[in-house]
Amino acid sequence: MRGSSESAFSIATLEAFGAALFVAAGMDGDKARSVARLLVLTDAMGRRTHGLAMAPLYLAEIAKGGMRVQGEPETVRDTGLTAVWDGGYLPGLWLMERALDVAMARAAAHGLAAIAIRRTHHIGCLAALVKQAADRGFVAQVYNSDPAGRRVAPYGGTEAVFTPNPFAIGYPGAEHPVLVDICASITTTSMTRQTYAAGEQFAHPWLLDAQGVPTRDPAVLEHTEPRGSIQLVGGQEYGHKGYGLALMVEALSQGLSGHGRLDAPTRWGGNVFLQVTDPDFFAGRDAFAAQMDHLSDRCRSNRPIRADRPVRLPGDQAAAGLAQAEADGLRLDDATWQQLAACAERLGVALPEAS
Amino acid sequence: MRGSSESAFSIATLEAFGAALFVAAGMDGDKARSVARLLVLTDAMGRRTHGLAMAPLYLAEIAKGGMRVQGEPETVRDTGLTAVWDGGYLPGLWLMERALDVAMARAAAHGLAAIAIRRTHHIGCLAALVKQAADRGFVAQVYNSDPAGRRVAPYGGTEAVFTPNPFAIGYPGAEHPVLVDICASITTTSMTRQTYAAGEQFAHPWLLDAQGVPTRDPAVLEHTEPRGSIQLVGGQEYGHKGYGLALMVEALSQGLSGHGRLDAPTRWGGNVFLQVTDPDFFAGRDAFAAQMDHLSDRCRSNRPIRADRPVRLPGDQAAAGLAQAEADGLRLDDATWQQLAACAERLGVALPEAS
Repeated sequence: MRGSSESAFSIATLEAFGAALFVAAGMDGDKARSVARLLVLTDAMGRRTHGLAMAPLYLAEIAKGGMRVQGEPETVRDTGLTAVWDGGYLPGLWLMERALDVAMARAAAHGLAAIAIRRTHHIGCLAALVKQAADRGFVAQVYNSDPAGRRVAPYGGTEAVFTPNPFAIGYPGAEHPVLVDICASITTTSMTRQTYAAGEQFAHPWLLDAQGVPTRDPAVLEHTEPRGSIQLVGGQEYGHKGYGLALMVEALSQGLSGHGRLDAPTRWGGNVFLQVTDPDFFAGRDAFAAQMDHLSDRCRSNRPIRADRPVRLPGDQAAAGLAQAEADGLRLDDATWQQLAACAERLGVALPEAS
Repeated sequence: MRGSSESAFSIATLEAFGAALFVAAGMDGDKARSVARLLVLTDAMGRRTHGLAMAPLYLAEIAKGGMRVQGEPETVRDTGLTAVWDGGYLPGLWLMERALDVAMARAAAHGLAAIAIRRTHHIGCLAALVKQAADRGFVAQVYNSDPAGRRVAPYGGTEAVFTPNPFAIGYPGAEHPVLVDICASITTTSMTRQTYAAGEQFAHPWLLDAQGVPTRDPAVLEHTEPRGSIQLVGGQEYGHKGYGLALMVEALSQGLSGHGRLDAPTRWGGNVFLQVTDPDFFAGRDAFAAQMDHLSDRCRSNRPIRADRPVRLPGDQAAAGLAQAEADGLRLDDATWQQLAACAERLGVALPEAS
């Protein structure tokens, strides 16, 4: 039976469907499979804004030439431990999967490895990326900025300079990895757009208008002239902390890759700094696990403020979502399903069978 | 003329005075000079809570055997690029200066180098540490936690598990380095103690009482039973971000060093993860400088929210303070002066000459 927005699909079915869409749009098969696998994993982990909901946007980018679908990244520099790649706006998830593979192999040989990438296309959900390495016993860190975007102002300023600048660290845990995936601003571009599209206001004043006055109105980000900005972590009280995080991400992802705001790119893309660290080159994987699992226990057993909300570790919800998706399949929300079905029709791709 | 709390002292005079105090307390001369130099630098950078005001606390630790004053750190592991040291509660500032020297030499040879240190004594102001490497063209990152301290609860919890977990990144800038020095909690232990000692309340509810209710009262941290905690960055609204930062710092500083809360240390000290990165092994120092100086310009020229408060970069204030101290000398606040004078009398060290 052909699926609908009511259907549950197996992970494998959705991966094959997503890959078929990208292949039909001209993407190399290995890239299509990599991108589809990571988008579906992201859905299964519960990060729906960065799952298959991105596929229609990627397909639109491919159609207008924004995302390249064939070819290889250019190696700008490679010293064996450190590298700079020019991603040439190839699919970011595929580039990151390849970068993770290279960095894991190097970290396993030397303890540390880092790759700075300029001009990737969108790299999706950072938690899903660092999970690839944390599942294999490594500590992985990803820092990401888009020098074509300006949506966050420096602390005390009114003019947007930064993107939200997400960064993530993943590390092994007893049952599943701990996946920290945060950013330098209070909320994100996609949450702001989603809130605006729903005609809603944020619960708290998480943006600044063009005069620097805190506001709950998501319209100030992209629908007023002059534009406002998203507040830094810490807001008016201690936004120097978010400012520091924003600078950290820019230095690692743009400074080290040697490409950034100075080049004034206008194309949707991004810069990345990836580092993989092997605990076996420090005190060892067992010692790492002993310390961190003890810490996780101290957190999970912590007396909660609200009895109905036990303390979790970042990564717990993703692991539960993934287990459920593996057992019961995944449902897509109606809007995503309609958009994917329209893409499938346009590209001549069959809709997937419900599981 | 012997100085007083009214006097300005040259940096060299204060360094010699500080070193003389530590030597009189039994510390090796090289360690004493290193610790004194970095404390005075910290004062000059304007971080007074972590400058010579720490010396009486360090001397008290020495007197009771908490800080070791002679000997070398133990090398637990060394692979050439990665290392684990056991600091054996030797002076943290001296250990960090040595670790920075080793890591800079290795980074200059390989591009990256990292050292995880267990059981340092207090390492002082992280901005002053990363400055040592950023002044020489490197990117330096320091992550620091104290597994003997519990003052910050996990997000949604009521029982303190973490320390504020400071971390810093320093990188070269056109006139002086950019020095980001922040932490996972809204405020710090020393600010909370200082506010309590002054009989004041915080301007905002930056702590939680033992039931997890936000409060401005610094007493809940160490003067109520049961104790409260310092709120994570993001507080009740988005404290999952601060929680992620706290876990990141614990994983790097305790997980990789293989020593931490599982060992339940009770002695004042800390764990460190230090990484030094050489931009010349990525896109190069010139490319790094071009990108980051452009970004700094975009920040400093940003139209400020308040016309009388121009946007600064972290590190600007420290550079201005240092230049002024080099020109005019440094004054110490009255309380610090009185404590230092009492230590000097007890140890038979002459008070410094005013400049």
